[in-house]
Amino acid sequence: MNKYIVLKNRPKGKPSLNDFETKETEKPQPGEGDILLKALYVSVDPYLRGRMRDQKSYIPPFKLDEPIESMVVAEVEDSKNKNFSKGDFVSGMLDWKEYQVSDGKGLNKIKKNNAALSAFLGILGLTGITAYLGLEKIGKLKEGETLLVSGAAGAVGSIVGQIGKIKGCKVVGIAGSDEKIKKITEDFQFDEGINYKAAENIQEEIKKACPNGVDVYFDNVGGEILDAAVLNMNKFGRVINCGAISIYNAEEQPTGLRLEPFLFKNSIIMQGFTVRDYAEDFQPAIRQLSEWLKEDKLRYEETIVEGFEEIPQAFLDLFEGKNKGKMVVKV
Amino acid sequence: MNKYIVLKNRPKGKPSLNDFETKETEKPQPGEGDILLKALYVSVDPYLRGRMRDQKSYIPPFKLDEPIESMVVAEVEDSKNKNFSKGDFVSGMLDWKEYQVSDGKGLNKIKKNNAALSAFLGILGLTGITAYLGLEKIGKLKEGETLLVSGAAGAVGSIVGQIGKIKGCKVVGIAGSDEKIKKITEDFQFDEGINYKAAENIQEEIKKACPNGVDVYFDNVGGEILDAAVLNMNKFGRVINCGAISIYNAEEQPTGLRLEPFLFKNSIIMQGFTVRDYAEDFQPAIRQLSEWLKEDKLRYEETIVEGFEEIPQAFLDLFEGKNKGKMVVKV
Repeated sequence: MNKYIVLKNRPKGKPSLNDFETKETEKPQPGEGDILLKALYVSVDPYLRGRMRDQKSYIPPFKLDEPIESMVVAEVEDSKNKNFSKGDFVSGMLDWKEYQVSDGKGLNKIKKNNAALSAFLGILGLTGITAYLGLEKIGKLKEGETLLVSGAAGAVGSIVGQIGKIKGCKVVGIAGSDEKIKKITEDFQFDEGINYKAAENIQEEIKKACPNGVDVYFDNVGGEILDAAVLNMNKFGRVINCGAISIYNAEEQPTGLRLEPFLFKNSIIMQGFTVRDYAEDFQPAIRQLSEWLKEDKLRYEETIVEGFEEIPQAFLDLFEGKNKGKMVVKV
Repeated sequence: MNKYIVLKNRPKGKPSLNDFETKETEKPQPGEGDILLKALYVSVDPYLRGRMRDQKSYIPPFKLDEPIESMVVAEVEDSKNKNFSKGDFVSGMLDWKEYQVSDGKGLNKIKKNNAALSAFLGILGLTGITAYLGLEKIGKLKEGETLLVSGAAGAVGSIVGQIGKIKGCKVVGIAGSDEKIKKITEDFQFDEGINYKAAENIQEEIKKACPNGVDVYFDNVGGEILDAAVLNMNKFGRVINCGAISIYNAEEQPTGLRLEPFLFKNSIIMQGFTVRDYAEDFQPAIRQLSEWLKEDKLRYEETIVEGFEEIPQAFLDLFEGKNKGKMVVKV
């Protein structure tokens, strides 16, 4: 049989297991030109929450009672397509299904090298590419500048900080536990870490950790931490609005500090960043990340949960900060 | 005698006449290398409110009991500087003084042409340059796009909209009275106008006036109108944060809609714009504006108040929307 997972209800506020349902169907047969894929690793990511909402966005919302999709690493089990052979590994936007048929369009063949297969959902996948291109395209980091990143122990954040160190910047990370702070400063070599849950005044803590002000803020969380960062930014500062996990689950329109007077005062740029806008830059990004990985300049961490049916729980755990680095489900 | 105007108190909230004081002193004598200037036209601008606050900003705050400064057009009454002759006209950042001495640094000589002297505080001064460079540097307007501008009947806004029409865009202006809307649509040839004071739902009004969405929003006001504009922006939209007159007088940190989810969703840029950052681009900007002015492609309006001692009242009137176009005091 062939298990798959559908969106059963549109979550109200924080999603719960009741919003998902695991179903079964027949294992499909590939037609002429198709390949049969067996899912090996499934990526769960905070941005998927947005697609569970019934609203216009850069990618269409998930439909109720249909499979959810995310980035998946799969093995070709059978091929009637001349571009793929049995035993190939691919990555791509695929359904949460144990087995599925594809015409191969939009799939990337994974070149075998020393990296683990799961890395192609993380540091060599959209996660690493997001960190790299966000800093390149909007951050425009210069040596000696101060880089602040939130969600610093997370999948994207931990790579952002390491790239900042490679580029010769002072790097300060914000995360939600002393354990995570220890990890970013010891394992990932950030200069400083701020545990926002222990901070009395996050704006003051940032000021202390960044005595020369903040030049680039890579924002994965939004909300009050964004406000505190903007209040610490230097003239010509750049904010990469890459995610807003702190408010994804809000049902009301969240409010906060009006930022426009500060943008105006210091000629600050805030720019929404969605990696999909830069598809033509993916290959050079992967090449650079692979090189740094080979040279041992980049480390990554992943939380691997085992079992296809654990995908919804792994997704929910993202909002509790239970992952360290990239959260991946091994099927 | 020689009148001058000082900042007597730092305003709390909305400034009042009590925050200013007119004093008298001797008419100064120019030393070797100096020139004696007689003020002819004095510019009053909303951004001066920021310099009345005792806080770090891109230009230092005004000092209490010392003269306020702004852009002034003056005549050289006496010169001991070889670069200037009696009878020359200059513009520059000068004190609110009837007569003052300068070493000439930072002053621009005004080349006599068909434009009125007061125009060098407006359409051919920082006002026009702000409109032009804001659109060039951040707006990056393309033919056929939709340009929305707030404070549309104001000094900067009315020029922004006209440049939008020259560039072949659909131009929609937001202003605070039916009379102003009539002015921008009839005199300045905007395509549509929205009277925000009469609007029940400004977000809906923008949607109606901009059925293809907003590509560039030139923001002179901040606050709820900014929120409503961002909610109507297209993918890759650009917001020029040029001013925030709606909240300059706020004593508490103003709050509003959190914009980061929308920036993220549509890859929107919001960028604080201060014309002083682009000093090297002033001359080409003035050349282009002069050319359009000569070709009758640009019109401007100014409100000229007469009398040196009326400067504070003219400044206060800006916050009541009593000016049409550039507010200038003729000494």
